[in-house]
Amino acid sequence: MQGNMLIAHGGGPTPVINASLYGALIAAKDAAQIGNIYAAHYGIEGVFAEDFIDLRAQSDEDIALLPYTPASAVGSCRRKLKSDDYPVLLEKFKKYGIRYFFYNGGNDSMDTCNKIAGLAKSSGYDMKVIGIPKTIDNDLCRTNHCPGYGSSARYYAVTAAELKQDVMSLPIHVVVMEVMGRNAGWLTAATAFAEPDLIYLPEVAFDKEAFLSDIKRLWNTKKGILVCASEGIRYADGKMVADSGIVDGFGHTVPGGAAQSLADMIMTETGIKARGEKPGLIGRTSVALQTERDRNEAIAAGRFAVESALQGKTGFMVSIAADGSLSLVPLGDVANAERKFPLEWIVNGNRISDAFKAYAAPLVGEMPKFSKLEGRT
Amino acid sequence: MQGNMLIAHGGGPTPVINASLYGALIAAKDAAQIGNIYAAHYGIEGVFAEDFIDLRAQSDEDIALLPYTPASAVGSCRRKLKSDDYPVLLEKFKKYGIRYFFYNGGNDSMDTCNKIAGLAKSSGYDMKVIGIPKTIDNDLCRTNHCPGYGSSARYYAVTAAELKQDVMSLPIHVVVMEVMGRNAGWLTAATAFAEPDLIYLPEVAFDKEAFLSDIKRLWNTKKGILVCASEGIRYADGKMVADSGIVDGFGHTVPGGAAQSLADMIMTETGIKARGEKPGLIGRTSVALQTERDRNEAIAAGRFAVESALQGKTGFMVSIAADGSLSLVPLGDVANAERKFPLEWIVNGNRISDAFKAYAAPLVGEMPKFSKLEGRT
Repeated sequence: MQGNMLIAHGGGPTPVINASLYGALIAAKDAAQIGNIYAAHYGIEGVFAEDFIDLRAQSDEDIALLPYTPASAVGSCRRKLKSDDYPVLLEKFKKYGIRYFFYNGGNDSMDTCNKIAGLAKSSGYDMKVIGIPKTIDNDLCRTNHCPGYGSSARYYAVTAAELKQDVMSLPIHVVVMEVMGRNAGWLTAATAFAEPDLIYLPEVAFDKEAFLSDIKRLWNTKKGILVCASEGIRYADGKMVADSGIVDGFGHTVPGGAAQSLADMIMTETGIKARGEKPGLIGRTSVALQTERDRNEAIAAGRFAVESALQGKTGFMVSIAADGSLSLVPLGDVANAERKFPLEWIVNGNRISDAFKAYAAPLVGEMPKFSKLEGRT
Repeated sequence: MQGNMLIAHGGGPTPVINASLYGALIAAKDAAQIGNIYAAHYGIEGVFAEDFIDLRAQSDEDIALLPYTPASAVGSCRRKLKSDDYPVLLEKFKKYGIRYFFYNGGNDSMDTCNKIAGLAKSSGYDMKVIGIPKTIDNDLCRTNHCPGYGSSARYYAVTAAELKQDVMSLPIHVVVMEVMGRNAGWLTAATAFAEPDLIYLPEVAFDKEAFLSDIKRLWNTKKGILVCASEGIRYADGKMVADSGIVDGFGHTVPGGAAQSLADMIMTETGIKARGEKPGLIGRTSVALQTERDRNEAIAAGRFAVESALQGKTGFMVSIAADGSLSLVPLGDVANAERKFPLEWIVNGNRISDAFKAYAAPLVGEMPKFSKLEGRT
């Protein structure tokens, strides 16, 4: 089938989403069946607005830089589609002669992708639709891991190791680092490679009394303590720990952050000095801690999506095996499903098992080696 | 003079303080005049406690890793010395036959160093004392820049550039990044290399009305906005912006953070979505963004300190010129003085002049190049 191609990004960026864009573009440029190569500007919003970036018009340098460029080079959005949005999208695809559509995103995006593939089929419009996985949260089903997770996991693992060095060398406080992943603990678990003192995933109800008791116990044996906590930790009653409960003059709740909330909790209830660090979005943008494997897999996933569509495949997502090999899984199996962090990998509510480390070590890569001076007088 | 050597770290670590330790150790190991080489464990506290690390006993690998190890490999402290502490220190130096003392720190440490040098001289104890500069804050006088500043400045410049990519690619909010440096804006100014929308240094009284008006004006033209602000910004009356004014049940003020405070302010007063990111201590521990120049200069400064002491010099701090060449300046000129950020480099209270960039560019190094896709349909 001869036609134009469109690729779009959905949701929050990852350190390697542009690497998948690069892979897809490289594969498409060489394909005789593909005419124009468009990227939707600001995700699916760009399709509604007919705002496209002409990927064939880009300089070699800008294309070569894509795998090393953080965030989305073509823009993304968080628009939740309604059922009557889909026919509008289909009209846009027809208007621009799109016969190959690639959607690079997470669970929501795979649901959108699945619905678009279904609508094209049911309405007799021949368009090949393939989803390219992307999420730092690692919560897509039917794939061993997701492009973006490895780099972001390495960011948190290495950063926790560096913070641990700092807190051990000037042991005057408890340092709490906040980790992205509101509902899934995959990223927070990666800090286990740094062996912090306590780790809190959103999958476990946060127990304030146990936490404060652990902090006091640890403080009695050493002064420098590192805690890693998900931004999404909640109490047993479902209330967010980050929800300070403070209401401003306008009646809005001041959101706060999980790390600062835990630091405040430590200071006010134990008198121990504490500080909260929140790299926040930095956890998904750091190019310096992007892993080579993640970058290469993201490129390969983009390339494989295009190659599969050119072979007539549609309605699938690219899946990555533990050994990095690629295959296709039906979008319907992935759409809106969530891959949960295995609860049996959480030990005592505040530690991570070696089973997780065995899973994640090939993705996070080798941890940096630091000097350990000994030989006291 | 034949004798033992002692080196100590003072205050907060930098990304390259262990590089200076490495340089000093390498120079000392080869010197016939130096017997034992001690590092004080946890800074000057280790001298009082007679808790020393034998640097001659370290493995080649641990020594080679020092320049790439974040935080302090021998430990540091924030103890403020009192006048009657000095005679105690001198007794410890005598007891351990210390004839060469090196103190690696900032303003306070250089004051301590100066007093120790003075006391040794006045009491007739022959000990060579040299200060090695160290501070990410870059606020030491009589040196073009300080080891630690270049790497930390690069961390904030590159991180701001990455965050800007993120906020531009998914323009749904204002992102505020908090930068270390409570009293000095040198680090916050480094974010100018990323050209964020607004920059707030602690040297300028923070004007809430002007800030909110700037945010609203920017939001009307584009949605993705990046603000970089020092952790130490204050209102004209001296009140910290980070001071939320919220008092907990124990009567303590909940400290909060500058970035989260600004994000809360934006959300509650304009209704625009905002988030605050606070890398915090990560800004002084990142090895991935450590610069080669900073590492090499830190090594050279440690080496030069030892070589100078072996030549009989005492009572000086190592100073670094713009071209990286080293010299000695009297500790008395540096002790407790503070190198202010030039106010004429701050434009309109929220931008940084090219004069700063001309100063800092050789220290921050080349900014990463990102792909810029154009060619809209």
